[in-house]
Formats: sequence, structure tokens, C-alpha cells
Amino acid sequence: MSDIVNRFATGAPQNLEERFASRAAHMKPSEIRSLFAVASRPEIVSLAGGMPNLSDFPMPMMADVMSKLILSNGAEALQYGSGQGHPKLREQICEVMALEGIRANPDDVLVTTGSQQALDLISRIFIDPGDVVLAEAPSYVGALGTFHQYEASVIHVETDDSGLVPQALREAIVSVRAAGRKIKFLYMIPNYHNPSGVLLTTERRTEILTICRDAGIFVVEDNPYGLLGFDKPSPNAMRAEDSENVIYLGTFSKTIAPGLRVGWALVPPSLKEKLVIASESSILCPSNFAQLAISSYLAEQPWRDQISSFCDLYKVRRDAMLESLDEYFPAVAKWTKPGGGFYVWVTLPPEIDTTALMPKAIVAKVAYVPGTAFYSDGFGSWSLRLSYCYPTPERIRDGVKALGGVIKTEMSRRGSNQIS
Amino acid sequence: MSDIVNRFATGAPQNLEERFASRAAHMKPSEIRSLFAVASRPEIVSLAGGMPNLSDFPMPMMADVMSKLILSNGAEALQYGSGQGHPKLREQICEVMALEGIRANPDDVLVTTGSQQALDLISRIFIDPGDVVLAEAPSYVGALGTFHQYEASVIHVETDDSGLVPQALREAIVSVRAAGRKIKFLYMIPNYHNPSGVLLTTERRTEILTICRDAGIFVVEDNPYGLLGFDKPSPNAMRAEDSENVIYLGTFSKTIAPGLRVGWALVPPSLKEKLVIASESSILCPSNFAQLAISSYLAEQPWRDQISSFCDLYKVRRDAMLESLDEYFPAVAKWTKPGGGFYVWVTLPPEIDTTALMPKAIVAKVAYVPGTAFYSDGFGSWSLRLSYCYPTPERIRDGVKALGGVIKTEMSRRGSNQIS
Repeated sequence: MSDIVNRFATGAPQNLEERFASRAAHMKPSEIRSLFAVASRPEIVSLAGGMPNLSDFPMPMMADVMSKLILSNGAEALQYGSGQGHPKLREQICEVMALEGIRANPDDVLVTTGSQQALDLISRIFIDPGDVVLAEAPSYVGALGTFHQYEASVIHVETDDSGLVPQALREAIVSVRAAGRKIKFLYMIPNYHNPSGVLLTTERRTEILTICRDAGIFVVEDNPYGLLGFDKPSPNAMRAEDSENVIYLGTFSKTIAPGLRVGWALVPPSLKEKLVIASESSILCPSNFAQLAISSYLAEQPWRDQISSFCDLYKVRRDAMLESLDEYFPAVAKWTKPGGGFYVWVTLPPEIDTTALMPKAIVAKVAYVPGTAFYSDGFGSWSLRLSYCYPTPERIRDGVKALGGVIKTEMSRRGSNQIS
Repeated sequence: MSDIVNRFATGAPQNLEERFASRAAHMKPSEIRSLFAVASRPEIVSLAGGMPNLSDFPMPMMADVMSKLILSNGAEALQYGSGQGHPKLREQICEVMALEGIRANPDDVLVTTGSQQALDLISRIFIDPGDVVLAEAPSYVGALGTFHQYEASVIHVETDDSGLVPQALREAIVSVRAAGRKIKFLYMIPNYHNPSGVLLTTERRTEILTICRDAGIFVVEDNPYGLLGFDKPSPNAMRAEDSENVIYLGTFSKTIAPGLRVGWALVPPSLKEKLVIASESSILCPSNFAQLAISSYLAEQPWRDQISSFCDLYKVRRDAMLESLDEYFPAVAKWTKPGGGFYVWVTLPPEIDTTALMPKAIVAKVAYVPGTAFYSDGFGSWSLRLSYCYPTPERIRDGVKALGGVIKTEMSRRGSNQIS
């Protein structure tokens, strides 16, 4: 017995870090985390967060949908459900995807707790430590965080105002493979990109699909904003053109409401079983209640009209932001002109460090997200993301004006002669 | 260009399996999966699933709670929320845990998508491939599946009618460490165990906590059933006695309803930050709606009375099962006598293979879960789990009678002379 005790004493780790898995070293607070605590104070105009604007969402209607659901079908809605997701909702999800040209079988859809969970599951299935994930430059901060937790190396691929540059993708594939590394997939947001706001052209969609198919690389198409085009419908989803090599991620967070946490993945049949098993291991099953509430809403309510109404609301805000950028930002600054979605990506002169500038912006009562958050490699220090989705147009103008002043002051302090 | 194409051709993996992460090899269908498809047919008495019985849940009240929530606070309930979980619900969770002697700070609580997500996150933080997790013999199938996906080796520790055997735990720690392997935590369900139904004694709780503290091993205390004791309150939670070395998992799935998917983890402060970051990477944030619906329910409704009502309902079913086991099972069979929860664990003579017996049981219109599902090492082939939570007492009697007949026939076929 004393022998046992002695072995305990020598065997016991003295240090908490020693007890963690190696991947835990990648679980560090992001730049955005500490920022959001500050940016959420009411006196700050937050152009930082990507929260959908629910100000014209028909609450009495949703209250009624939920109440009826519980009274008519509570025993199912409040019970455990299928790991893959409710069959009825999976059918309706196929109808939603048909709006972007996708023909899909409900058997190939997995319902998830927001599309973030789909990102997590895809990473779990594909990424061994040291594997490479290709992503646009810049890319969605939440996806980068997940890829890093699975110990992937993210290699960014050049983009321009038409989206990912196909030739840059070719070169990236060659150089990564020449270095003897495995590429697991290309992650991209073709529609109204987060953070850049850019729409990938139809021609490039086809070209990128061909490159990836020839190279044996899955495309992970993340499409939260595809139905939020302001002036014309978005091009067909990439998945509409290639059902074998595209893993498609969708969500109701921007077209209905994020607080229900319902997203989905549509995958090639060869991936479906592993994805369902991975999801069951992760959450057992998605919420039957949330799924059936969305199912009732889609079946009974004019949801396409509500999306049009959201688009009108966001378009007014996009216009307010672009007009005030013209008015208040230095002429040397450049920014994207989004045709939908939530975001504008601003590029300043390279001597401006947007992370270092944040405290001054907060003093001026405005917040944004510094560009480095959207790169895995430290790039982006003279860029920033502005969100127009949530504040009123007046607040957007106030915020952009204040930020323009902060930037001009900083440029002047640095002796730049490029201020207009 | 042709060079690039050639390199693509040689670099492209030809085989889907080659593209997967190594952990994907552990994503295989469980025995329970295929079983549930059959067991859910209406003509089968399912003693297999662990679905809570919602037959006396007050649906009109819950419909009212949800409707009021959307009308009064829809803009928050339908929006993204905190990654850690809503502060108000985290306070109420501390009040719920106080019923089992736990004093906790809401800052140390993470709200999860069911406690399965907490199991997943704990595994993610702690388990490197090849690490050891200690667990009771038998243990919860859903936890075993998650540990395997993170490529842990599960080592089972002997249990008896008083729960985990402390001396067996001591010996397991010594032998695993003598083999040079790292133990990451001890996973256990002290109250009305799944699958065994056993309650861990108070004395053993203290002894096991001491062993694990001395050995530098966290205890993961999974407690879905602690408030479902039939005759007297359960002993205090293990976390009540040790706030530094216990990771506590709770859920509303059995005390309110599983369809909302709200569970939680209460962790030592040193683990909190990593757990929140891991959860954000996994699902961004738990559902604000589900959290606030439960928060309103806890604040406004007689939830303790509802739990008493659930206990009454389960006790009647437990009695029906134990009585019919006495009446219809062969005398040589042994089973546990649960004082709460959902499950009875039956041990048959070793020559009976409960997996091989399942098709005969299905023909006799009864389903159960074979014992091997609850072991990581193939043990348990002459055991099985029976759930009494869901069917009516009459159906339970019919099912146990049918299963008893199947077992007696099988024993007789094998020439056993132990049938009574």
C-alpha cells in the first residue's frame, strides 16, 4: 500500500499544462474576444460584430409558431431526435438550397448547431496535425480558429474584387505539395464574403471547381449570406455545379434568426455516415424544438418576403456606410463595395497598424475588427473589417466619421502627406 | 501549365480514406445505432432507449413560457449570445446544483448543447491519441464513443452494487502508470448509473476523491440522474466535496426536457478559459432561446414539483420492471435494483451472448441494449441494459415477459439446467 502511494506521488503531474492535450495550446483568446467586451458598451458605435439585425423580425408571429408547436407536437419537439436532424426539416432545407440552384437529397443533409458546428465536424473528419487547409486571404475568423484547434496550417490564397484568384490557387497547390504537405480542403465563402464583402464571379466558380476536382481537393463552400444580395440574385452556389467534390454549409442564422442555432451541411454521400457519427459524438442530436420551430416557420410563414425585408434593411445600411466612407475617410484608403451581406473591408496605408489604433478608436466611441484577425499568418495589419448590419444608418455615419477622424489624425501624426 | 497539371495528377489522393484524419477511423456506427431503427417500430416494446418520459409534462405551460419570452424579449432570445452561456441561466444552474450540496460561482459554469457537448469539449482539451481515460465497468456508451474519437484508450475499473470499487481504482492507476501511459481523467456517473442503475455510496465518494487528488487525476462527474432518486435524496455530489479536482457535468434533459439541448459543465477556474474557447470553436455559442426558455421556466414554474412528478412516474415503472423480472426471468439471472434513474443492468449466465440473442428478441417484439455496447474492450457479452423510463408499466411487463421467454428458450436450447 505504501508502494502504491509512492507511485502516486511520483506519477502525479505537478503542472496543469502537462495534463492538457497538445491541441489545447491552440485554445487561446482571439483578438476579437476582448474587443467585443468593450465594443458592446452602449456609448460605442460598434462596427465590429456581425449580429443580424432583428429589428423588423415579426415577433408575435414567431411567438405564435412556437406556442402552436408545443401545444400540437410538444412530445416530439421536447424529446431527443435523430442525430442527423429531423427528416421534415432536411427536406425543407433542400427547398431553400434550390433557390441557389442546388439539387440535393435530404439524405445527404446533416442539421447542425449553427454552421460553426459543421466547420468543427469537417475539421474533425479531415485534419491531422500539420495538414494544410487553403483559405481566402482574408478569411472568416471563426473558421480559422477551428482549423487551428485541429492543428492545421492555414495557407491563404490571394483574392481581388472578383474573389479568389484561380491562378494563385494553382500555385498554392503546387507549392504546398512540393513541400511534401497534405492539403485537406479549400475553405471559401463565395457570396458577400466575411470579412471582405466580395462576390466570387461565375467564371471563377467554374474554374476553381475544376482546379480542385483535378487536384483531388474538396471545396468547403460556406454560404451564410447567399440569399442576402441587394440588387440581383447571387450566382448559383458552387455546389449546384459539382455535387461530388463540394461540402456545402448553410445556416438559418442570417435568414431567420441566430438564437435558434440551426445550420446544416450538405455533403457527398461518401462522407455522410462519418459526419453523422462525428456529430452524435459531439452533441448527440440537434435540438428537435429549434428544428421544428424553423420547420413550422418555413411551412406557414412568408419567409421569402422576410428575407427581402432583411435585404432592404441591410441595403440602406450598406449605402450609409459607403457614403460616409467617401465623405470621411482619407482618399488613400480603399474599400470593397459589397453587393450583399454584412461587411466592408478597408485597406489603409501600410504604416497604419489597425490593432494599435483600436484604443484610440474606442476613445472616439467607435469599434471595428483589426485585419490581422482574419489571417493566420500575421498579415492584414493595415486592414480592418467594418460591419453595417446592426446599427442604424445614423449611428453608422457617426461611427465612420469618428473612425475617419482617428485615421486621419494617425496619418498626420506619422507625417503622411496623403491625407485628403 | 502542363507541369502544374501533372503535379496535380500525381499529387491527387486516389482514395477517400487517405483524405481523412486518422481519428476518422474511430467514427464507426455503434451497435445501438442500427438497433434503434428497429426498436422504434410501434409493435416492439423498446426497453432499449433512454428517452425521458414527457407524458405528464405541462405542455400548455411551456407553450406560454415560450410565447411570453419571444413577445417580451425576442430580440435577445433570437440573437447570438455569449459563448460561455447566458449569465442569468448560469446563476440559476448554481441554484439547481445547490440541491446536491454544490457551492459554485456562475463564472465557472459553461452552458453546453446537452452534456454530450461537455464530454466532447473535455475530451478535446485533455486527450492526446493514446492517453488513458479510466471509466466504470460498464460505462455510458455515448461517453465511450467520444473518448474513442479522440483516440483515448478506455480502461474500465471494477464496480459492484455500491459503485466503483476504490481498491480497483488504485490498482488500475498503478498498472496504467507502470506501463508508462498517461491517465487524463476518471469518468464516472455516481448517481443511478447508466447503464447499471447503481448509486455510489457516500464513503466511496470520499475515498475515490482522495485517490484521484493524490494521483493528480481529474474526476469527471457526469450527473444526469442525481435529482431522480425515488425514495430518498441522493448523497451530495462529489463536486460538493472537492471543487479543485472535479469537473462536473449537468443537464436539463432529464429534469425538464431533452429537446432543448441544454446542459452544462462546472469546472475548476483554471480550466474555464480553455473550455469556453473550445466551445466557441465548436458551436460559437449555445442557443439563447433555449437558455432563456429554461431560465423563465425555472423562475416562474414549480420545477421542483415537476421533478417529483417525474420521479413518481419512473418509480412506478421501476417497480413494474423489478416485479416482472422476478416473475419472468430465470432464477440464475441477476439484476441491479436501482433507487432512481432509468436503468436496470441484467447479468445472464456467461454462455448467453446478448448481441446474438437480439434478433430473437425482436421477433418476440422486445428490444434491449446488449452489454458489450457499454465496454470498450468487448466485455459484457452476457449482460444487457433494460430501460424502464419510457413505456407504460403494462408494456414493461409484456416486454420483460417476452424477453424472459426468449432467454429461457435459449438456455434450454443450450442444455442449461439452471432454468427456474
